[in-house]
Amino acid sequence: MVDPIPVRRGRPGYDRAQVLAIAVALFNEQGYDATSVADVAARLSLSKSALYHHFDSKEQLLALALDEALSGLEGVLDAPAASAGSAAERLAAVLHGAVAVLVDRLPYVTLLLRVRGNSVIERTALDRRRAFDHRVTALVEEAQRDGLVRDDLDGAVATRLVFGMVNSLVEWYRPGGPVDAERLAHDVVAVSLDGMRTR
Amino acid sequence: MVDPIPVRRGRPGYDRAQVLAIAVALFNEQGYDATSVADVAARLSLSKSALYHHFDSKEQLLALALDEALSGLEGVLDAPAASAGSAAERLAAVLHGAVAVLVDRLPYVTLLLRVRGNSVIERTALDRRRAFDHRVTALVEEAQRDGLVRDDLDGAVATRLVFGMVNSLVEWYRPGGPVDAERLAHDVVAVSLDGMRTR
Repeated sequence: MVDPIPVRRGRPGYDRAQVLAIAVALFNEQGYDATSVADVAARLSLSKSALYHHFDSKEQLLALALDEALSGLEGVLDAPAASAGSAAERLAAVLHGAVAVLVDRLPYVTLLLRVRGNSVIERTALDRRRAFDHRVTALVEEAQRDGLVRDDLDGAVATRLVFGMVNSLVEWYRPGGPVDAERLAHDVVAVSLDGMRTR
Repeated sequence: MVDPIPVRRGRPGYDRAQVLAIAVALFNEQGYDATSVADVAARLSLSKSALYHHFDSKEQLLALALDEALSGLEGVLDAPAASAGSAAERLAAVLHGAVAVLVDRLPYVTLLLRVRGNSVIERTALDRRRAFDHRVTALVEEAQRDGLVRDDLDGAVATRLVFGMVNSLVEWYRPGGPVDAERLAHDVVAVSLDGMRTR
């Protein structure tokens, strides 16, 4: 295989995090399956062998990228705010934290949300997503038992709906755009827990 | 080009709606750009010329499919329920109607949500989607002026969040599955307008 653009030598080096970020941007632009290691190397103006100095394979880039998204989301459930206060307060903290992770790690979460289970790495990521959803559903159901969340909603469906709202941010939210991240997290928590209607 | 599987003759004929439905299923499975007219013909066990008896081009199939989704959504805003009662009641009717259209026309809405503006047909569809969003945002803002929707939310952001929730249904809702469509529409309206928290 030949690199599509000439390899420029003497450019400043990239660290692993930068290489990963650029690879993920490319995966999101043109699809993971359609992106080759040569494409990633070309985008970095590195030779393939220089890229292999950082990473063993395209699969490793994918695994690390998906872990970046998933460990962020799992960290929200493991944070002190997710285990202090009422189940409704913890749910608010989890939703707020999930929006913060999505905003902070937007390209990684975007990639995660496109995973369809085409490989062991993708299926492992889907299993972790599912485990995350189950922990949130358990929190919603606890809040229902405590009378804090209305019981005319199915806990699993409500969790899917609310994370459907959170995840839809990848379609339009752009850092530095007109919508402030903190304000966005507020609006997501406000609509999820209290709805649009005045009380 | 040669059809990838033999053309079986004497099969019962398809009407235009059936051909369109099968083409849309294929577009959703493997992507519109990656699907050829020959692929659609093969799925139907028709020759390409028999397919051209129904439709002029792949672009025409796309345009009709996107119109199926968009005219459904626009119909919700034009229905009597969307112009009777308070702005909050009309908003509830629009959300309920949008879920009903999504459930009824799931493959068409799925296709619409994947459109990225790669052609005139796609850009026209995106313009119609945007016009729909603007009409819903105007309704949210009217409800805010009437004191029926909380004014600490940005109307356009709230509309995006709530339609993010509605549109996320294409990721997991399946007709005939464990979640009833009418119940789902109830849950979407309930969470959007009144939130998960007990009042």
